[in-house]
Amino acid sequence: MSPLEGVRIVECASFVAGPSACLALGQLGADVIKVDPLGGAADQHRWPLAPSGRSLYWTALNKGKRSLAVDLRSDEGKELVTALITAPGPESGVLVNNSVGRRWLAHEVLTARRPDLIHLRVQGHPDGRPAVDYTVNAEVGVPGITGDEQGAAPVNHVLPAWDLITGMTAATGVLAALRERAATGRGSCVELALADVATAGVANLGWLAEAELRGGDRPRHGNHVYGSFGVDFETADHQRVMVVALTGGQWTALQEATGTTDVFAALAEPLGADLGQEADRYRLRETIAAILRPWFAARTLAQVRERFDAGRVLWSRYRGMADVVAEHRASATETVLTSVDQPEIGPSVAARSPLRWDGEYDDASPAPRLGEHTDDVLTEVLGLSPAELGGLHDRGVIAGTG
Amino acid sequence: MSPLEGVRIVECASFVAGPSACLALGQLGADVIKVDPLGGAADQHRWPLAPSGRSLYWTALNKGKRSLAVDLRSDEGKELVTALITAPGPESGVLVNNSVGRRWLAHEVLTARRPDLIHLRVQGHPDGRPAVDYTVNAEVGVPGITGDEQGAAPVNHVLPAWDLITGMTAATGVLAALRERAATGRGSCVELALADVATAGVANLGWLAEAELRGGDRPRHGNHVYGSFGVDFETADHQRVMVVALTGGQWTALQEATGTTDVFAALAEPLGADLGQEADRYRLRETIAAILRPWFAARTLAQVRERFDAGRVLWSRYRGMADVVAEHRASATETVLTSVDQPEIGPSVAARSPLRWDGEYDDASPAPRLGEHTDDVLTEVLGLSPAELGGLHDRGVIAGTG
Repeated sequence: MSPLEGVRIVECASFVAGPSACLALGQLGADVIKVDPLGGAADQHRWPLAPSGRSLYWTALNKGKRSLAVDLRSDEGKELVTALITAPGPESGVLVNNSVGRRWLAHEVLTARRPDLIHLRVQGHPDGRPAVDYTVNAEVGVPGITGDEQGAAPVNHVLPAWDLITGMTAATGVLAALRERAATGRGSCVELALADVATAGVANLGWLAEAELRGGDRPRHGNHVYGSFGVDFETADHQRVMVVALTGGQWTALQEATGTTDVFAALAEPLGADLGQEADRYRLRETIAAILRPWFAARTLAQVRERFDAGRVLWSRYRGMADVVAEHRASATETVLTSVDQPEIGPSVAARSPLRWDGEYDDASPAPRLGEHTDDVLTEVLGLSPAELGGLHDRGVIAGTG
Repeated sequence: MSPLEGVRIVECASFVAGPSACLALGQLGADVIKVDPLGGAADQHRWPLAPSGRSLYWTALNKGKRSLAVDLRSDEGKELVTALITAPGPESGVLVNNSVGRRWLAHEVLTARRPDLIHLRVQGHPDGRPAVDYTVNAEVGVPGITGDEQGAAPVNHVLPAWDLITGMTAATGVLAALRERAATGRGSCVELALADVATAGVANLGWLAEAELRGGDRPRHGNHVYGSFGVDFETADHQRVMVVALTGGQWTALQEATGTTDVFAALAEPLGADLGQEADRYRLRETIAAILRPWFAARTLAQVRERFDAGRVLWSRYRGMADVVAEHRASATETVLTSVDQPEIGPSVAARSPLRWDGEYDDASPAPRLGEHTDDVLTEVLGLSPAELGGLHDRGVIAGTG
């Protein structure tokens, strides 16, 4: 499946948001040409690293793209990249850009060359000030409601969630702009700030309106799910499980599987609670957890699994990432994970697109070496001759490893 | 701006992922018809709640949609919804569906009525087993690397990050399928499992390959940014700030603003470290933090802000959500936040799309009341007469508040 076959995107972006947007579009069939400065951008060596020293972060985020390495400070380099971005074609003329301060990539400069350009600019703040996931998360208040109820210090999240959400929002923006251009002929300058994605993210869960209308911040609630019942338990063999009962059906299943239906029914009157209601399950979350905890402590993970899977309880095991890899290797069925033979790294686990088209996962490709496709792309898209490419190499304007 | 004007989407979805996909598509101009069972779906009263008892979560995720309330267990109700989903039109015939076990919404049943249907199915696991954000996050190992370095128990994230990423991935999938249908005439069944989004998410950061190639799980690192320098500090007036130096430029700016350039230069030899390199900043993160901590402890937030903003340091303040709302109210410029007058709640803060089209934020609309557009939609899309609508109401097949 290649629903975006024929679409060509130029990526001038580093770190997570822009590259993950183009990764997703490339996995759907778009031709993504990634432009990096000679020697690579600031994310070229970002952790984690392979034993070889190559960045696993960079290779994971840039799978299946074509790589061009260009001296972006030289006039010749700028002209090459501008020509690539504005090259004709009904479904080219698409730029994903998170660079700051490159006047020559300004929207009005580029549209002078191609008026129907689609230009998706990923920013930190909407006024252009820089921001990264770790700073915007602090700004929107998530670390203050994360972690232990008794804790006082903020707990940063480890996952750069806002980066990943921004990436997929950017991908959505590119496709909406392509649809508009197909319908009207008009291009677009679409801006998307990481800080806005984070602010909209917490607002879209009702959390800002809650702070406004209820007058203050929600307290931390540890590992509990807010407003319902869900928390972690430890098993007899020191595994941990997460158990959730959002709906009435899930709550019934959990009680039946743990044999506690009568216990919780009997509690209703003395505690004045209808545990069939989410709000009461949340209010009495510590009581419910305290009743269930010995049940888990008396059973191994295997016993819990057998009972819960038979009883259709909503639960999961806490796995480490090494467990995820091991279970992927042992899996008899196709999963979202596969193995790619990554140059300079070797065979290693990689994800395909989670979007399954007509029942199939796509194939994953390795990331390019920096500049691997410099000559190919300039030949194919701009029609440069071998002599012209040779001159550009000799003058140090482009580099290639292909 | 309405890049998706003319696109019509039927949403049969609840909780976060499906509704947030359609929220984003609606904010870009698509007509989103949300179908709920009579009385609402299981997320109708999800927390947080307004003082009036109305769900702020539901209203935030369903802004600007049209609401249809139908008895989804009755044959007449099923036929109405099927007719809506498969109604003719070049840019209708799009369904976002996260329901489980509704045979009448199976892809082959619907494509018998409209062969070029675009059907985006949001799932828990790819094999159909249920999952929610809180369970998949545990499965992919994020809670095990979150929180204090000395901690032993997993730390759940509070933000349903995987839900939000799944939502935007679904939106991308819908638009890619629309592009393919426009180009080829073919519809698509696109499946997207929350568990796959989470697995691909951690894989796309290189974290699974790290666990595979380095043989084991990464240790927790508290509030530090992995592989570089970034951590929180407390100011003299007991505010907290997050400070990050990923790039060489950010590290230089931080040293200059705190007057520590010579200190860190002098440390290089005795500690055998080049702090200009991210990896060394990460290795010596506790040392760097210990040197900087008294600098922050001696200054108020205002003093830190003045120095850091002048010196272009990458930093932010930890805000509470009440602070976010207060600063939005005090802001003289347009932001991603606005106020909507939400029926049964009143004026309250709400987010617009973070995608700014040609420099402008879109306008935000309130969420519908349940069933507010039942009659309108059935008249407009299916051409039902007042008499037919009356009969459906009388038989309890549909409900409306309009």
